[in-house]
Amino acid sequence: MNRSNFYAVILAGGKGERFWPLSTSRVPKQFLSLVGEKPLLAQAIDRLEGLIAPDNVFVLTNADLIGPARESAPGLPAENIVGEPVGRDTAAAIALGAALVKKRDPNAAFAVLTADHVMGDLDVYRQTLADACSLALEEDVLITIGIRPSEPSTAYGYIEAGEEFRKSSAGTRFLKAERFVEKPDAATAAEYVSSGKFAWNSGMFIWSVKAIEKALRIHRLPLYQMMQNLAPAIGTGAFKDALADAFGALEKISIDYAVMEKADNVLMAEGSFAWDDVGSWPALENHFPKDDRGNTVIGQMESVGAENSIVFSRGRLTALVGVENLIVVQAEGATLICARDKAQDIKQLVQKLRDSGKYGPLL
Amino acid sequence: MNRSNFYAVILAGGKGERFWPLSTSRVPKQFLSLVGEKPLLAQAIDRLEGLIAPDNVFVLTNADLIGPARESAPGLPAENIVGEPVGRDTAAAIALGAALVKKRDPNAAFAVLTADHVMGDLDVYRQTLADACSLALEEDVLITIGIRPSEPSTAYGYIEAGEEFRKSSAGTRFLKAERFVEKPDAATAAEYVSSGKFAWNSGMFIWSVKAIEKALRIHRLPLYQMMQNLAPAIGTGAFKDALADAFGALEKISIDYAVMEKADNVLMAEGSFAWDDVGSWPALENHFPKDDRGNTVIGQMESVGAENSIVFSRGRLTALVGVENLIVVQAEGATLICARDKAQDIKQLVQKLRDSGKYGPLL
Repeated sequence: MNRSNFYAVILAGGKGERFWPLSTSRVPKQFLSLVGEKPLLAQAIDRLEGLIAPDNVFVLTNADLIGPARESAPGLPAENIVGEPVGRDTAAAIALGAALVKKRDPNAAFAVLTADHVMGDLDVYRQTLADACSLALEEDVLITIGIRPSEPSTAYGYIEAGEEFRKSSAGTRFLKAERFVEKPDAATAAEYVSSGKFAWNSGMFIWSVKAIEKALRIHRLPLYQMMQNLAPAIGTGAFKDALADAFGALEKISIDYAVMEKADNVLMAEGSFAWDDVGSWPALENHFPKDDRGNTVIGQMESVGAENSIVFSRGRLTALVGVENLIVVQAEGATLICARDKAQDIKQLVQKLRDSGKYGPLL
Repeated sequence: MNRSNFYAVILAGGKGERFWPLSTSRVPKQFLSLVGEKPLLAQAIDRLEGLIAPDNVFVLTNADLIGPARESAPGLPAENIVGEPVGRDTAAAIALGAALVKKRDPNAAFAVLTADHVMGDLDVYRQTLADACSLALEEDVLITIGIRPSEPSTAYGYIEAGEEFRKSSAGTRFLKAERFVEKPDAATAAEYVSSGKFAWNSGMFIWSVKAIEKALRIHRLPLYQMMQNLAPAIGTGAFKDALADAFGALEKISIDYAVMEKADNVLMAEGSFAWDDVGSWPALENHFPKDDRGNTVIGQMESVGAENSIVFSRGRLTALVGVENLIVVQAEGATLICARDKAQDIKQLVQKLRDSGKYGPLL
C-alpha cells in the first residue's frame, strides 16, 4: 500500500568511470544491467513497489543524461526526471530534491536513494524505509541508513552508532548517529566491525521536508536559499533557467560534510538487508556464481587453465588461456583487461583515453 | 629475368589453429596479413618476382580453401591453384606438385616453398633459389634450404651439414646434408648453434622433376605411382576425380620422413637471409617495434602499467591495466587473452571450442 506522503529522490548522476568500458560518460553505471535483467536505476525504482508510488519518485541526474534516465525509468512521469545543469555533489542535489517534494507536499517525508546499488532482502529494505519515513513524519530528525557489515570492508565509510532512540513495532532499530568516518584501513575496519558499534555508510537518507529544510537553513544557508529561490519556478517553463542560475553559483559539497557531520539530530536506521554499492568490477563476483576454478563469468567464455578471473562478455566470446586474476570486460568497440588488484587504476586509463582524444566515441 | 624452366610449388594448406582467433579453419594463417600489408601467401608469390613467372607458380591448398587462396593470389592463373581433397602431409603434396610441373615441363626444376613464412634480405633469398634451381638442373640432387641460425631456437628442427659440395659464383654454398634432427631442447640447440655445423630446417626444397620423381620411386613408391596415375588427367575435366581417388588412398607422411632422411643425394643450401616461420603469436614481436615497456602493439591499444605484452587489435581498442606477459588478439566476435608462455595451449582451447559446438561461427 503506497503512502501518499512518502516520496523518494533517487540520485542518478555520476560518470561511471570505474565501469569503463561498459559504462561511459554517456551511459553511466546506473543505466546498465550489470546485475539483474533491468538497469540498476529501474531496479531502484522497482524496489519501492508497494511503498512509494511512481508519481512520488523523482530521479535527479546530469542534464545530458535525461535521455538514458527516461529509458531506464519508463514507469515514471517524465517531469519527475530532472537534470542538474552542472554537478554540485549530493548536498545540492538533495536540496533540489527537497524543493521538488515540497512543491508537491510540504508535509511529506522523503527518502534519498541511490540509483546504482544492488540489494537483497527487499522486504526488510522496504520495512526499514517505511519505518524511517513514519518516524521522519513524527520527529525532527535526519535519518541515515547504516548497513550491518557482513565483512570489514575498506571500500565504505562507516557510521558509529550510539544509544537506541526508537525501535519500530516491526523491529527496525533507530540509534543516535555519533560519528561519520571515512574509509578505514584494514586494521581499523576490523576493529570497527568487531566492536559491533559501526555500520556501513550507505548514502541513503530519510527525513521530512521540514527537517532537511531546517537543517540546510542552519548548516548550509546557500542551499536553503536555493530551495526558496527555485520554488516559484517549479512546474513552470522558467524552471530550467532558474535551476541553471541556482546551481551554477553553488559550491560542490557532499551532504555528509554539509549537514550530517554537523547536525545533532542525526539517527542511524539499522539496515539488516543485503546491500552492495558495486563500486568497481571486482564487486561483480559477489552477485554471480563462480565456476570451479574461481572464475566469475557473465556472458560467453571458454578457457584453458584460467583462474580467479572476472569476465563480463555479453555478445562476444572471451577465450582465456593460462591467465589468472584478470578482469575482462567486453564492450562495444573496446575490451578492458585489468589486473584484479588494479581496478582502481581504470580511472587513470579513462583519463589517458580522454587526453589522447583518439578514442572519443568510447568515452 | 624469369627463367622459363624454373617453377615453384607453394604449400598453402594447414589449419592455422595456433593463430586462433584471427586464423580459423576457414581462414588459416597464410591468407592473413599478420605481418606486412598483404596476406602471407601473396608475399610468398611476390618474393619470386624476377625469378619465377606467375604462370610457373602453383599453389596447393585444402580443397575448401580454394576461394581464399585465389583471393590472396590474384596474380596467378586460376588453374595453378589446386585443392587437395584431403590433407596427406607434405610428401603427397610435393608428389602432386611434381606431377603438375612435369606436365608443363619434364625437364624443369622447381622449388617447394611455404605460404606462411616471413622473410627478409629478399635479394639473397632469390639468389639462393636461383643458384639452387640451376644446380638442380645440372645434378641429380635433392636440395633443402638450411637457415643460418640467428639464435639457438628450440622451435625449429635442424639440419647437420657436412662437407661443401659446391659454391655458386654468387657465393651460395651447398653442403652435404648429413642428418635431420627434430626440435632440440635448449642445451642441445645451444650446442648445435655453437658447433657452426647446424642450420634451421626451413621446409623449403629445390630439385628437378627428374630427381624428385626418382627419389619417390626409390623411397616412397606409392607417391611415384600416384604421379604416373594422375598424369593423364592433369589439365582435363577428369583431374578432380582422379586426384580424389589418388589422395584418398595415401598415408600421411612428411617429405622429411618419406625421402630426405633416406636419400643419399641430399644437399643443404645455406640460407643467409632472414627467415621466420611465425609459428605462433609470440613470434609476432620479432616483426614489430616494441614500446618502452616492452609491449608489441599492432592496432589500437591504451594502457596503464602494462608490460611485455603482445597486442593484436586491429579495428578494436584493447585497454590494459596493470597486466604483464599477455598475448591479446582481437578478432571478429572473439578476444583471446593468453599467457605469453602458454601459447602452445591455444590448440587445446580451439579443440574445446570445437567440442562444445557453441562457437561454431568462430571456427
